[in-house]
Amino acid sequence: MKKNEISSSALVSISSLTLKARKLEVDTRKHFVAVISNDCSLCKSAGFRTEARINIENGGHPIIATLYITRNTTISPGEIGLSDSAWEKLGVKEGDKLLVTLAETLDSFALVRAKLHGKTLSDLDYKDITNDMVEGRYSDIQLAAFTTAFVNLDRAETTSLTKAMSESGRQLKWPQYPIVDKHCVGGVPGNRTTMVLVPILAAHGLTIPKTSSRAITSPSGTADTMEVIAPVDLTIEGMRGVVEKEGGCIIWGGSVDLSPADDVLVQIERALDLDSQSQLIASVLSKKLAAGSTHVLIDIPIGPTAKVRYRDEADILKTLFLAVGQDVGLNIQIVETDGTQPVGRGIGPVLEARDVLSVLRNERDAPQDLKAHSLFLAGKILESCGRTPLGKGILEAQKILEGGRALKKFEAICKAQGGFKEPTLAPFKHVITSIQQGAILSIDNRLISRIAKLAGAPDSPAAGIDLHVSLKTVVEKGQPLFTIYAESPGELNYALHYFHSHQQVILIGDAI
Amino acid sequence: MKKNEISSSALVSISSLTLKARKLEVDTRKHFVAVISNDCSLCKSAGFRTEARINIENGGHPIIATLYITRNTTISPGEIGLSDSAWEKLGVKEGDKLLVTLAETLDSFALVRAKLHGKTLSDLDYKDITNDMVEGRYSDIQLAAFTTAFVNLDRAETTSLTKAMSESGRQLKWPQYPIVDKHCVGGVPGNRTTMVLVPILAAHGLTIPKTSSRAITSPSGTADTMEVIAPVDLTIEGMRGVVEKEGGCIIWGGSVDLSPADDVLVQIERALDLDSQSQLIASVLSKKLAAGSTHVLIDIPIGPTAKVRYRDEADILKTLFLAVGQDVGLNIQIVETDGTQPVGRGIGPVLEARDVLSVLRNERDAPQDLKAHSLFLAGKILESCGRTPLGKGILEAQKILEGGRALKKFEAICKAQGGFKEPTLAPFKHVITSIQQGAILSIDNRLISRIAKLAGAPDSPAAGIDLHVSLKTVVEKGQPLFTIYAESPGELNYALHYFHSHQQVILIGDAI
Repeated sequence: MKKNEISSSALVSISSLTLKARKLEVDTRKHFVAVISNDCSLCKSAGFRTEARINIENGGHPIIATLYITRNTTISPGEIGLSDSAWEKLGVKEGDKLLVTLAETLDSFALVRAKLHGKTLSDLDYKDITNDMVEGRYSDIQLAAFTTAFVNLDRAETTSLTKAMSESGRQLKWPQYPIVDKHCVGGVPGNRTTMVLVPILAAHGLTIPKTSSRAITSPSGTADTMEVIAPVDLTIEGMRGVVEKEGGCIIWGGSVDLSPADDVLVQIERALDLDSQSQLIASVLSKKLAAGSTHVLIDIPIGPTAKVRYRDEADILKTLFLAVGQDVGLNIQIVETDGTQPVGRGIGPVLEARDVLSVLRNERDAPQDLKAHSLFLAGKILESCGRTPLGKGILEAQKILEGGRALKKFEAICKAQGGFKEPTLAPFKHVITSIQQGAILSIDNRLISRIAKLAGAPDSPAAGIDLHVSLKTVVEKGQPLFTIYAESPGELNYALHYFHSHQQVILIGDAI
Repeated sequence: MKKNEISSSALVSISSLTLKARKLEVDTRKHFVAVISNDCSLCKSAGFRTEARINIENGGHPIIATLYITRNTTISPGEIGLSDSAWEKLGVKEGDKLLVTLAETLDSFALVRAKLHGKTLSDLDYKDITNDMVEGRYSDIQLAAFTTAFVNLDRAETTSLTKAMSESGRQLKWPQYPIVDKHCVGGVPGNRTTMVLVPILAAHGLTIPKTSSRAITSPSGTADTMEVIAPVDLTIEGMRGVVEKEGGCIIWGGSVDLSPADDVLVQIERALDLDSQSQLIASVLSKKLAAGSTHVLIDIPIGPTAKVRYRDEADILKTLFLAVGQDVGLNIQIVETDGTQPVGRGIGPVLEARDVLSVLRNERDAPQDLKAHSLFLAGKILESCGRTPLGKGILEAQKILEGGRALKKFEAICKAQGGFKEPTLAPFKHVITSIQQGAILSIDNRLISRIAKLAGAPDSPAAGIDLHVSLKTVVEKGQPLFTIYAESPGELNYALHYFHSHQQVILIGDAI
């Protein structure tokens, strides 16, 4: 039995066109959008239609964009209009000639369908998928389907995904040992321990090439908070330079091409506000693996409105973390901590940065909970590497912090990353006060975060919440509970409107 | 324990702005896209940012659009540019004043997240979700997440989804009884029995208010094929008129607002090329319920490359169809038929329409398989309603078809729907010939459909495949196997390129 073949002799390859670049001057964030004229007959005969996925090349690496057809005369036949994102990624100049082709069909998405129908994917399958993601071949809805279909993975699948993601970009190697790292599972607003413990550990002499994420579903990620103080968009060479000089860094993971598949997925997880244990572990450990870490501390806060609500949920996560860590060759230590209320006072990049600086500067009114939690984690890492005896880590960390060495190291890291700047609060604010006397019975992490987000955080870095109370604080009627900060009156109103319809943010009862 | 309240007196409601409508002249298909100027300070202070979801009102029903920010001076501050889709949906004129607000947070998506984490949703939950979908509150990635998360539902969940969808739009009631209907599960290209059996049954005197879908993952849906002969975009009043006059219609389900939630989902299923038994059943039965049907025949073709590949898979589908049918009060009859190869010769709207007309006109070279299959299904429906004794349905159907009454009724239906037109073939074609002598051992429905799609079907209605052979046909070397039709040389090349890399489309072996 033989395959039949086509009879004609010379078949031309997939049609491609050369079109002249025009800047659309439209911000579409990460999405690559291209627009051609309805009157471009060449485009039509090449089969280009609205919402088609197209390849665009400018000599170097091609991008895949979504195409729209316009009857507007701004774009002439023979031209292709590009969104800011596509313009920058391709590095084009007005009038450059770009090679444009219809994008090939996406074979690896068949694996996503197969997974949905019960198939177990191989390491190679995961590599195919993550490679296509990093190359920008997945459309947003395909990414959304992937994220949803891969919500619940077992140990082997999570390991496969972790490895594939860690190999999806650059991979750092260091001459030193150990290389320490830390990650907090999150859900607790204001919990910016990284910015305190990295300078403590680096001042001690450990190597901690820390990359952090921007907010996924929260009002701020560590990268967002650090960014209001110092640049975080370093190249991988820049990052290496900072770590070689200062022993540590606090930068955004997305700019150094470590596990870039994670950065692609995070965009969609953020938009869907969707959580997955397997994707969380793959996300965290792929970054650590790619960064060359050997010892990783994972902080799992537990609380009714934290990301992890129950101890048994934390234990499942812990087990999966340890198992996958073992499979990929990382020394993992897990701590389960108190996640019943925000840490520090500020929620949102600028307000959190203010808290961090206050702790590092040993100011008298610095938030003690942020300080204590940072020292606890730094101590655990010192102990796990054998730098101090068990039980002595916190004291060593405290000595470094209170002696001013951590502040000095933090300032040196900021300088090495591109310069320190003092953050400024937002111009619009509204104080929420208590309508009764009593004790604070609960603070809802999720609702307070939601208000900070609606106020504009993290896109408006100075927006957010400043908490004036914590659990068990006894308040008088009329006493301020928290202040909402926003960069515009509209956003302030939007946040207040939400607060109006969800008033269980802070519960106050008779003093206990 | 009391809730705290905010202290300030008058809080304004969510910020809204009045902006002047401008037509962007950009085709974004079903998506509503809006663009404002980077220099609009009012917009900024209202918290509008790029990719925000916004409500737009023009007196009537609001739409939800995705917002982009431009620095292009085409759109001035105080103006809002709209895609064609948004422009038409809002029914605006250039310069109209539109009320624009940030869209509220989407509470029902929390139900999708809950489902992913194992929660069983209630009837009310499904209603909340489908209502939000129909109101356009779900973004595309949220729809993709829904479709993926709800791939595998049990009987009760499928019933809930079916009921919610059937109540998501208009619901027809008819004075006659029975109201018959038919659906083919699909996967078999060219299988346009609806267009033959509706005129047969209507000519017999039965009432068959048939709505069909456009292609989801195939090169043509019945609505696409019918549309090249007669208008299918009727209003519900128009549909009622046709059915009252002629006893039947063949129209697109999307224009009559029957189960509009289905139309929303179909867009995403089409883009993801994702199949789900539960969503298939909910899609089919919600349309039938809303159309007022009482007796529904479901045709399940089985074949290695049909949608349903194995008899036990068909049996699972059959069981779920019958169970959900019972739960929602429909009389369901299931037939499992041969799906091993395409039905008729044409694949793609125009080529299929040509086959249908040839059968209705009793032309000598009409495809006999399409005729036989249509008569079989029409006969089953006649029998299930007691219009003929068991076993006599086919003969009655054949009498109506061969006597010319079906053609007459079809022409009358076309006229009632807005007028008959003869379809025309595409200008570009390429004949694929056999490179060996032998018998046709297999024809891959999926690959041949994929080629027809890459050639442009159904968006380019005249594009597609014309098959010159069927299973067991003995061919000589050089004998034509099929012809690819396209409306542009680029699309023709694209289809040929795919054929080149997937040559197992038709297998030829030694004569058996």
